[in-house]
Amino acid sequence: MGRIWMSQMVDAIADLGRLYFERPSNENPLEAAHRLCADLLSEHGEASGTALAREVVELYGGLERDDRIAFLDMLNNDFACDTDGLGDAIARYSSDASQDAYLALCRAVEAPRQELLHRINAAPNGTAAIVEMRALLLETLKDQPDFATLDADFGHLFASWFNRGFLQFERIDWRTPAATLEKLIKYEAVHEIRGWTDLRRRLADDRRCFAFFHPALIDEPLIFVEVALVQGLAARIEPVLDAPPPEADGEAPDTAVFYSISNCQAGLAGISFGNLLIKQVVDALNAELPEIRNFVTLSPIPGFHGWVDELMVDTPSDFLDDEERAMLADANWSEDPAIRDRLEKPLMRLCAEFLTNPLDDGPPRDTVARFHLGNGASVERLNWGADLSPKGLAQSAGIMVNYRYDPDKIVANHEAYVGEGRIAISSSVRALASARR
Amino acid sequence: MGRIWMSQMVDAIADLGRLYFERPSNENPLEAAHRLCADLLSEHGEASGTALAREVVELYGGLERDDRIAFLDMLNNDFACDTDGLGDAIARYSSDASQDAYLALCRAVEAPRQELLHRINAAPNGTAAIVEMRALLLETLKDQPDFATLDADFGHLFASWFNRGFLQFERIDWRTPAATLEKLIKYEAVHEIRGWTDLRRRLADDRRCFAFFHPALIDEPLIFVEVALVQGLAARIEPVLDAPPPEADGEAPDTAVFYSISNCQAGLAGISFGNLLIKQVVDALNAELPEIRNFVTLSPIPGFHGWVDELMVDTPSDFLDDEERAMLADANWSEDPAIRDRLEKPLMRLCAEFLTNPLDDGPPRDTVARFHLGNGASVERLNWGADLSPKGLAQSAGIMVNYRYDPDKIVANHEAYVGEGRIAISSSVRALASARR
Amino acid sequence: MGRIWMSQMVDAIADLGRLYFERPSNENPLEAAHRLCADLLSEHGEASGTALAREVVELYGGLERDDRIAFLDMLNNDFACDTDGLGDAIARYSSDASQDAYLALCRAVEAPRQELLHRINAAPNGTAAIVEMRALLLETLKDQPDFATLDADFGHLFASWFNRGFLQFERIDWRTPAATLEKLIKYEAVHEIRGWTDLRRRLADDRRCFAFFHPALIDEPLIFVEVALVQGLAARIEPVLDAPPPEADGEAPDTAVFYSISNCQAGLAGISFGNLLIKQVVDALNAELPEIRNFVTLSPIPGFHGWVDELMVDTPSDFLDDEERAMLADANWSEDPAIRDRLEKPLMRLCAEFLTNPLDDGPPRDTVARFHLGNGASVERLNWGADLSPKGLAQSAGIMVNYRYDPDKIVANHEAYVGEGRIAISSSVRALASARR
Amino acid sequence: MGRIWMSQMVDAIADLGRLYFERPSNENPLEAAHRLCADLLSEHGEASGTALAREVVELYGGLERDDRIAFLDMLNNDFACDTDGLGDAIARYSSDASQDAYLALCRAVEAPRQELLHRINAAPNGTAAIVEMRALLLETLKDQPDFATLDADFGHLFASWFNRGFLQFERIDWRTPAATLEKLIKYEAVHEIRGWTDLRRRLADDRRCFAFFHPALIDEPLIFVEVALVQGLAARIEPVLDAPPPEADGEAPDTAVFYSISNCQAGLAGISFGNLLIKQVVDALNAELPEIRNFVTLSPIPGFHGWVDELMVDTPSDFLDDEERAMLADANWSEDPAIRDRLEKPLMRLCAEFLTNPLDDGPPRDTVARFHLGNGASVERLNWGADLSPKGLAQSAGIMVNYRYDPDKIVANHEAYVGEGRIAISSSVRALASARR
Repeated sequence: MGRIWMSQMVDAIADLGRLYFERPSNENPLEAAHRLCADLLSEHGEASGTALAREVVELYGGLERDDRIAFLDMLNNDFACDTDGLGDAIARYSSDASQDAYLALCRAVEAPRQELLHRINAAPNGTAAIVEMRALLLETLKDQPDFATLDADFGHLFASWFNRGFLQFERIDWRTPAATLEKLIKYEAVHEIRGWTDLRRRLADDRRCFAFFHPALIDEPLIFVEVALVQGLAARIEPVLDAPPPEADGEAPDTAVFYSISNCQAGLAGISFGNLLIKQVVDALNAELPEIRNFVTLSPIPGFHGWVDELMVDTPSDFLDDEERAMLADANWSEDPAIRDRLEKPLMRLCAEFLTNPLDDGPPRDTVARFHLGNGASVERLNWGADLSPKGLAQSAGIMVNYRYDPDKIVANHEAYVGEGRIAISSSVRALASARR
Repeated sequence: MGRIWMSQMVDAIADLGRLYFERPSNENPLEAAHRLCADLLSEHGEASGTALAREVVELYGGLERDDRIAFLDMLNNDFACDTDGLGDAIARYSSDASQDAYLALCRAVEAPRQELLHRINAAPNGTAAIVEMRALLLETLKDQPDFATLDADFGHLFASWFNRGFLQFERIDWRTPAATLEKLIKYEAVHEIRGWTDLRRRLADDRRCFAFFHPALIDEPLIFVEVALVQGLAARIEPVLDAPPPEADGEAPDTAVFYSISNCQAGLAGISFGNLLIKQVVDALNAELPEIRNFVTLSPIPGFHGWVDELMVDTPSDFLDDEERAMLADANWSEDPAIRDRLEKPLMRLCAEFLTNPLDDGPPRDTVARFHLGNGASVERLNWGADLSPKGLAQSAGIMVNYRYDPDKIVANHEAYVGEGRIAISSSVRALASARR
Repeated sequence: MGRIWMSQMVDAIADLGRLYFERPSNENPLEAAHRLCADLLSEHGEASGTALAREVVELYGGLERDDRIAFLDMLNNDFACDTDGLGDAIARYSSDASQDAYLALCRAVEAPRQELLHRINAAPNGTAAIVEMRALLLETLKDQPDFATLDADFGHLFASWFNRGFLQFERIDWRTPAATLEKLIKYEAVHEIRGWTDLRRRLADDRRCFAFFHPALIDEPLIFVEVALVQGLAARIEPVLDAPPPEADGEAPDTAVFYSISNCQAGLAGISFGNLLIKQVVDALNAELPEIRNFVTLSPIPGFHGWVDELMVDTPSDFLDDEERAMLADANWSEDPAIRDRLEKPLMRLCAEFLTNPLDDGPPRDTVARFHLGNGASVERLNWGADLSPKGLAQSAGIMVNYRYDPDKIVANHEAYVGEGRIAISSSVRALASARR
Repeated sequence: MGRIWMSQMVDAIADLGRLYFERPSNENPLEAAHRLCADLLSEHGEASGTALAREVVELYGGLERDDRIAFLDMLNNDFACDTDGLGDAIARYSSDASQDAYLALCRAVEAPRQELLHRINAAPNGTAAIVEMRALLLETLKDQPDFATLDADFGHLFASWFNRGFLQFERIDWRTPAATLEKLIKYEAVHEIRGWTDLRRRLADDRRCFAFFHPALIDEPLIFVEVALVQGLAARIEPVLDAPPPEADGEAPDTAVFYSISNCQAGLAGISFGNLLIKQVVDALNAELPEIRNFVTLSPIPGFHGWVDELMVDTPSDFLDDEERAMLADANWSEDPAIRDRLEKPLMRLCAEFLTNPLDDGPPRDTVARFHLGNGASVERLNWGADLSPKGLAQSAGIMVNYRYDPDKIVANHEAYVGEGRIAISSSVRALASARR
């Protein structure tokens, strides 16, 4: 019969036990939730199998958004650390820092809701439900700053549950269950998947897709990366997305282009998987396709145009002459191809500067750059006119960048970047950056 | 390719990175362990993939017992909570119990080794290595009482990692991988499995075996239960263990006898799975074999003979006359069948008393009784001469007990036992217990 | 690594061997095919692993339709039984009917292409390629009557390869690989699946889908059946196809409606799986959902309207008066609701007659009726206005029929139908049929 | 639920149908078998699902050996080709060799038992039962020469069912189900596996085991090969079998030694899989372990000593002088180490001659040599004193041979051997063979 999740088993005996949990008719859902949570946290709950946990999850699932926030509020207030008890434990520890006093302090400082969340986790799809609670929590955190305590507890749990020793890596292809595939469509964050036909193209023989999973989040990827196997470093995104399948007797690809990386679980924000995934993918491709020599991204540069705009306001520039500055001052400059041609050279130089030689001394301003450089990539090549979509023009003047993952240099690049803030840059980009006018 | 544990993947890039971790030639293993652990806990470690974690696990695996204890000592001392920092956090919180101060206190009180253990967990078989560390820790705890703090941290992690939402249930049979089957032979704690032929018998068509697993402990059961499908409540253990396979056209069994339950992971002591497993097994058997009407154990009564001995010392008894007392005073009484016959009646009465009617007001004295009654079973039948092995005679005068799991009463029995300390007892055992001489 | 089909393995050594098979540049594809087939049938081919077989399959796959027919013609002529050898074997056997002479005759009569097809089967996807060859063969058989010999050889092979001992049964749901699911969309023959959203609805919790597979036809169902779990016998097809998912707390279904059965492989025509599938599905649903009491189809009656038309021409009828005959004479009668109402009674009677009481003495005229009655079903209920689609009106005046599969009567019904031609009919349909005007 | 073999499904409806098959009380098992077979072959049987087939298999399984032979006799006689019908079909075809007459002849010549065996195959484990029937048939064929016709039918079926397109390749290791592993112990034909501990050693990290399976023979390998990964060509078998597991930090192996190949299914004699398996294993090892440079066997030479004995009788020899001949004339010569030393040189020369330069012009006399040379191996090295077991000394004077599978030469070697009878021989063995005294 294979292995079955305890939480997914038909629990006939617990169903029998549901009689015990019948809700008084005049009880409102939040009162019920409080009562069920208190019961689940009691000794009774410890012994009740998965039935009570399932009640809580089903009840939460049936709530409207406002009531869900009220549920979170209840977790935050009613299942918080007992401050009196904490005070006592502090007093005891302060007068005698014994082992027992320390252990008592540890127990006193932990909010009971941590144990409560452990028990809710026993419900069918309990883990998914808890991840969703955190997603809502993060949405409301701005308006409810006192949720920070509750959020810290979620974060604490997730760091434990989703630590990398519990993650699984999987190639996604057309033989993957549809229940997982539809999640790709849902979660793709960089280049929208336009239905099942588009999805199928992205999973064809000259494409690869890999994802991380947690075993208790069945069918739910945590993060996935899409890869195109092509000839030569891809310079524009549109041909990657819309390429017809290659001829059977075409030349073999020599380059893997990572053209999209998407985090899937909003509730897991702050739990980082991206750097792991890319290294694993490079390893997996290396093993499967030894003829692939280049591992590069084709990445947006989301912060570039904004930086240029600031630059024009703030400082006279070594990079632009007055005519160029005037052109750029027109918000619609990029719609005119003639102007675009005219600006190619200075903007490419500026972009190289932006990515590799920050004016101040900190890390690169661009989040995507920080992500890849921190993972051991180098800045390989800038591509003019690589993304002419409105978003691409608005964010980065249509420029995209290839970051290169060289298996032989990933560790060294990473060490140099993390340790000394040194960025690995190809000679061509270096030349661009130094070619001040 | 299926899902692959990140921790199990061949990590070519990390292997490359091993160059960075080369050990100075004059460094002893414990110094190396300290250095590696400190490195793993640093930002460098966060980014290094699984390579550093693997180094730590391999290094620990290569240590002798004494050095392993020294390693635990290092965890306990060098990666403990920073008491100065804790003092500061307490002072801040005491003067202003703000949310931020509370969160800072939470952070300060947690020993850094918790994060360290999370990171070690990323190694191949990291979870198994950490469970083994705790097994050794528990062995030495008696001699090293200050390990209690360290043990609390392990316990905290395991409560999170092995919470029931992450457990999987599986039927074990002859098609199970040998790598798992050999663990049954290793871990069987009640009735020794005498090699593969005996094991095969216990997995035959008229037997069942079920286990819990954690997905990251591959091939390693957490707990398993062995079941014999027979006709009528089994009254003696030896025929259960040595029965030939039934005739193909024999009568269908109507009873499932749970004759052995074994915890497998010494390092998970205190993390309870037993009650869950029995309920799931009753459910699974109910679904597969609706013709099974009785779910009973055939259980030892490990504390009985000791209690009788105490009884004889402490108090004159309503249950025994002087002749009987004299017989029992001989340590070898049970070797003489005539005396055994003579003592059957009074000992059976005493045993019923022992299991069901504790003289003081607490729970039953017998650990096995507490386990099954707490799980919702009732005391069904006492069996004289059920286990004539030396151990059986020494522990329980050869008596074994059937606890019954009635699917319709498990919840009610459990509630009554936990809530009011009421024990469900069959009329026959009740009659025995009340039949004072 | 799991089990891998030999035919699917990367055969590096065979690839090396491809040098031996290089095609002369002036050879046309059919000459090449002939040469490769002859080579594959030689001792060389026996030893060459899968490489030669793959060449043949790839070459065939690259041919245009006309050349494929020429390929079949080549199989039919060039790899046919050697008539001279057969003549000799006949002469020998006729003069001395010894065991050896008989065995020689067996060998002589068998066309070498049977062994050739065995060897082609070793190619990756070889079985699928051979099934496709037969599909084309069946298409052209009408125009090429001498293909009958070739077709007999395909049929002989398929009876052996696809015999029921080699079939596998699988539930199809949303966790099934997309590569299989897209085949459902492609092969659905009764009620078109309108894209992935429609498909997903048909695989929801209140629906079931089951299929037969052959292990060597990976991802390719042979036949599948779609089932709706509903309350009460479904009387119309449109609500079955378009029903929204049921409320979570709705009443539990008591009826399984088999609303679509589709054969998938045109090349396997004549190899019957349907009766097996339905019995297995009834068994599987019985085991999973004991609360389902009714197993019925909602079936078209494709031959009904045609029979009525004949009836009107051929014979005066007991069932229709002159006015009704006049109405029916108008080809568009069914577009007028008033006329439809007027004709309900006589047409329902006629339909009951058509399905249950054939004028001549043979089996029912309707192919769908023959299929279900032969499988042990009974005629349960006729449903007026059940399928108002143009096709439904044209074929059966909008009537659909429920055939019932009663697990307790399937065997008896089947025996009575096959043995004595007796049809099981519900009392309501019997009443309809006997209610002559 | 995964894919389920139709033949393995619980067939509740067919069970119901068993009522129909109740055996008259005075019927003996063979009469029952005949009646059931006839019924199974009828139209009733076609529709009865798997129930009748199961009856036949269970009945056959319950027979004693003599009755099983009688069952085979019944198949041979009662379900043979109808000779009258065959005579008619011959007459028709002889007068008019039309397509229809040919097809009728094809049908007439085929014994009905072929269809009967197809239908028996639908039973649970039907394929295994039929393979076992053939095993018994082959055992008795010598005594019952008229079973040749029956055997031809089995052979015909098996060529179709077990054709290489339906075989699966699998690595066997310690995670393989015990139900398969115990088959290795049972079937090992070259070097006995002495229990589970020995088996575990053979599946350790420095060993490999691969097998072919047919999907319908669950848990039953068809053939398997055992491989040792070592340093340098192994020269003796005993260290291979008894080697302790290697040190973790030992030198990496560069050689794969195929030290045992066992056919498992006696009933499939004549259906060859061996050559396929070896090529696949070389491919699989090449992919997994690119550092393995040598693929060699360590093979017995079963026919060598017998050939030497003949040689001494038949012909004066260029290879032996009179003293050597006298020594060899003593049946116990090999027990005396001094004599063994004395005979090393001449026997090694003779053995090289035996394997590579047959006196007559046909293929090598040694069956094992023919097997490996036909698969594309070369004769690499002779090893004196390689197998000093009684069997090894008696068969081959203790000599064993390494055949080499060089991935780059397998195809060419195979072609040369099959096409021209040319044997690939290493220079060292060639030198030995030409070193006539």
